[in-house]
Amino acid sequence: MGKVTLFIAQSADGYIAREDGSIDWLRDGADEDYGYEEFFQMVDTVFMGRKTYDHIFELAEEFPYKMKDVYVVSNTREGHDDYATYLQPEQILPLVNMLKNEQNKTIWVVGGAKLIHYFISAGLIDEYRIFIQPTLIGKGIPLFQKHDHEEELQLTETNAYPDGMLAITYQREEQHH
Amino acid sequence: MGKVTLFIAQSADGYIAREDGSIDWLRDGADEDYGYEEFFQMVDTVFMGRKTYDHIFELAEEFPYKMKDVYVVSNTREGHDDYATYLQPEQILPLVNMLKNEQNKTIWVVGGAKLIHYFISAGLIDEYRIFIQPTLIGKGIPLFQKHDHEEELQLTETNAYPDGMLAITYQREEQHH
Repeated sequence: MGKVTLFIAQSADGYIAREDGSIDWLRDGADEDYGYEEFFQMVDTVFMGRKTYDHIFELAEEFPYKMKDVYVVSNTREGHDDYATYLQPEQILPLVNMLKNEQNKTIWVVGGAKLIHYFISAGLIDEYRIFIQPTLIGKGIPLFQKHDHEEELQLTETNAYPDGMLAITYQREEQHH
Repeated sequence: MGKVTLFIAQSADGYIAREDGSIDWLRDGADEDYGYEEFFQMVDTVFMGRKTYDHIFELAEEFPYKMKDVYVVSNTREGHDDYATYLQPEQILPLVNMLKNEQNKTIWVVGGAKLIHYFISAGLIDEYRIFIQPTLIGKGIPLFQKHDHEEELQLTETNAYPDGMLAITYQREEQHH
C-alpha cells in the first residue's frame, strides 16, 4: 500500500513561511539536505497547488519534478500541460485513494499552505516528516491551520542535526494496527 | 546568573489548550512525569497570570507552589496574599532582570497563554523546554502567538519518551557567546 507524506520545514514557532509567503529565514539545504534527496528518490507522485506550481517556474531554470507524476490542483485550469495534470479540488480524494490503494504510490504533498491544510484537515496525511529550524520568526503562515479533525499520531523517528535542525517523523496510528 | 524557563506541553499542531482553555487531551503525567519533578526542584520563582492562579485553587486541594516565590500578574489586585505577591504588567521586566541578574534565580513562567505571550514577545525566555504530545487537536490556543520579535535559538537537547512525547530544549543564542 502506498502512502501520503508531508515532508516540510517549519520555524520553531510553527510557521512554514512569512505572511507574504517568503522563506528567506529558511536554511537553503546547501550544506545539509536533511535527507531530502533520499526521500525524493522514493516519491512517485507530487501534489501541489496552482500558485506553488506557477511559482516554481519563476524560481527554477529547470522544472525539478520532471521525473515524477505531477498533479496541480486548480479551480480554473483543466487537462494537462508539459509537466503536470490539472485537477479540481473534489478530485483529490478519489485520486489519492486510487494512487495509494491500487497503485501503491508514494505521494508527496509539496504545498502551498492551502493544499497542505486540505490534506491535513481531511486526515489524508499518513506520514508527517517535519523539520523544525531553531528560529523564531514571530509571525507567518502556520503549518497547522484551524480545523475539526483530531487524531493520535505515532512518533517513529527523531533526528537532531548538528546545525540544530530537528527532524520529527510521525505516522498515523492506523498504519500500526 | 539566573534564567527564565518556559516548561510547557503542546499538541503536535502547536496548541497548549483547546479554545475554551481545557487540556483534557493532555496526558496527565501519572505514568511518566517527563522530568517535571527534577525541573521543579530547581525552580526558585514562578510567574503566572491571575486567571491561572485563581484556577489552581479550583483544581488543587493544596497550593502546589508553596515552597516557591510566587508572582501573580494582575491589573487590578495589589500587595500580596498568603501565597503570592501581585504585580502589574509593567513591573515584570524590572523584576525579572533583578531576580535573574542580581539574585541568580531560576524562574518558571507557568502560564497562562497571555503571560507566556508577553514573555516570548519581549524576548525574556532564556530556555524553552517544550514537550510535544503526538496528538493533533485541530484548533486551540497556540503556544506561539503573533509578534514582532525574531530570534535564533540553540537546540541543546531532545528526548523522545517511549509513549511518543518529545521533549525539546532550546537556549537563547546569547547564552552561548
